[in-house]
Amino acid sequence: MAPVRNARAIFNAIPAPNAFPEPGKTTVYDDSQTIDPDTVPLNGGFLVKTLVLSIDPFMRGRMRDPSIKSYAPPFFVGQPLNNYAVARVLRSEHPAIKAGDHVYGHLPFQEYVVLSDPAELGRDIFRVLENKEGLPWSAYLGVCGMPGQTAHHAWNEYSHAKPGETVFVTAAAGPVGATVVQLAKAEGLKVIASAGSDEKVAFVKSLGADVAFNYKTNDTKAMLEREGGIDIYWDNVGGPTLDAALGAAHRHARFIECGMISAYNSEPYMLKNVQLIVTREFKLSGFIVLSLHNKYLGRFYDEIPQMVASGQIKYTEDRSLGLEAAGEAIVSVQKGTNTGKKVMVVSDD
Amino acid sequence: MAPVRNARAIFNAIPAPNAFPEPGKTTVYDDSQTIDPDTVPLNGGFLVKTLVLSIDPFMRGRMRDPSIKSYAPPFFVGQPLNNYAVARVLRSEHPAIKAGDHVYGHLPFQEYVVLSDPAELGRDIFRVLENKEGLPWSAYLGVCGMPGQTAHHAWNEYSHAKPGETVFVTAAAGPVGATVVQLAKAEGLKVIASAGSDEKVAFVKSLGADVAFNYKTNDTKAMLEREGGIDIYWDNVGGPTLDAALGAAHRHARFIECGMISAYNSEPYMLKNVQLIVTREFKLSGFIVLSLHNKYLGRFYDEIPQMVASGQIKYTEDRSLGLEAAGEAIVSVQKGTNTGKKVMVVSDD
Repeated sequence: MAPVRNARAIFNAIPAPNAFPEPGKTTVYDDSQTIDPDTVPLNGGFLVKTLVLSIDPFMRGRMRDPSIKSYAPPFFVGQPLNNYAVARVLRSEHPAIKAGDHVYGHLPFQEYVVLSDPAELGRDIFRVLENKEGLPWSAYLGVCGMPGQTAHHAWNEYSHAKPGETVFVTAAAGPVGATVVQLAKAEGLKVIASAGSDEKVAFVKSLGADVAFNYKTNDTKAMLEREGGIDIYWDNVGGPTLDAALGAAHRHARFIECGMISAYNSEPYMLKNVQLIVTREFKLSGFIVLSLHNKYLGRFYDEIPQMVASGQIKYTEDRSLGLEAAGEAIVSVQKGTNTGKKVMVVSDD
Repeated sequence: MAPVRNARAIFNAIPAPNAFPEPGKTTVYDDSQTIDPDTVPLNGGFLVKTLVLSIDPFMRGRMRDPSIKSYAPPFFVGQPLNNYAVARVLRSEHPAIKAGDHVYGHLPFQEYVVLSDPAELGRDIFRVLENKEGLPWSAYLGVCGMPGQTAHHAWNEYSHAKPGETVFVTAAAGPVGATVVQLAKAEGLKVIASAGSDEKVAFVKSLGADVAFNYKTNDTKAMLEREGGIDIYWDNVGGPTLDAALGAAHRHARFIECGMISAYNSEPYMLKNVQLIVTREFKLSGFIVLSLHNKYLGRFYDEIPQMVASGQIKYTEDRSLGLEAAGEAIVSVQKGTNTGKKVMVVSDD
């Protein structure tokens, strides 16, 4: 086989704080490189062809000055973006991975990649997907990937849910929130869900939420009071919504603190109900999904893909095609104009 | 015996929200009533003489409009205040309680009380104190009573302490904080403690705290940073101190939310570090001691009084004499001008 194109999406410039990234400036498409898949040296590793890449909200936080510390490493100017991906193995010298395998892990935004760094080859970093259920590979980036794990792990660890209790889920149309809604319904809870558009609200209702509302056109506090309060709060947003949840929560309520996107690009909000943490005996649990993998990842892959295959858990996707689309795909997730879990299809197989 | 005075401290008026109670206005002393201890009908109950009454921070929250719900019942205008007490039984018609017993439970602020309501006579409400250790009865209101239980129960339930970790304890000279300091030292932790006067700081140091400082003359944030941060925060105060603790806490830190006295008499404070709950994976546990009794109360009475008797756990008291002093005693605890566990001695025995 002759050398073929090996296109990439490059992180080109750090965007200004609180500004949206700009396709063509923050990120650029580059097709100047080539690779010969038949002859490229593997050095004990393996060569993959990238099939699908995940586009997630937290990528914005990685577009920062590398001197700033945070829980996810920064992107480096001049290098490809990287994120969760599913790829097909073309050739392998690695004992645990063989040609034809499909692997899940972090990949650069690039059509072909040789993975030969021993530190990257552990099974915690790359997982061979069996996919007995025959799901689309992209499902392993959303409901069957990191966002689904976030929902599954933390729901099982922190919700202490009992049938008949009420949970309030924010950002409920996103891949995390939508999975939480369905896990909660499967356990017999009443689900109140909020999202940012009427279309998203309709999707959340189709998942079985008992009450779903557009938080931009409804008062969250009034909605929660009307429904008689809550026992569990799944927080993706923080700020005034967290305050409303604190005010509407029953004694011994559990707050699963998954994210506070309302606070990422604005001034702090003055929470008025913090005292209730004591007097109503609330428990707040902040977490990063990686910390829960040891306890839950095996169970996740045992349970969730088959629930998706059987239709018990539903999901939606919003697909972009080709690495040329990376910049626009990232911006759409930041602006919330995507209509489902954003994935970028690089190759059909 | 002829009728004798039966003085009371009455809840006289609800103080304005965010204002301190005022002796003589919020509470008044009343000595107009009498009782004949020899002849007063017991109706199947028992007559006690009040020895010591506890004055606690949470009494402020009970001075509210009774239509406002909270974890502790309100005081009612025109009726005596009430709180934890130790009393001596003078006469009894109750099968489980005999004259000469000392009982621990909730009593009105009154010199003599007939307890005949069957709902008040369960052993959960009144506990006969054996006091094999011969401790002063007032100890059963502090380190061996509700405040000690608060420290003991919640430390065991929520701290997940490991030797070598660092805990920051606020209001560390109070009966809860001082007990936490000593439990933490006994488990091999580094203890940072704050209190509101140099005298209190000296007391906390004498308990074994590794670092103790006066929060009025030192910057809490700078102190916590200088000491390399914290793994556990025992919160008695909330507000800016909670914010500093959030900022200085390591990943997976535990926040034991026992009280937020800074918020009881003032406007809400704007917490700036709430986002860190997610990104540093904090756990915040609010609690009321009553909720932990089933799990820990037996163990508490097995362990703590003998640790106090042996000197392994130390405590201090600040005694007020007579029901006339109730109003001032309550205010001193709200302002933190008391110099030890505040108790009111009504009778020597």
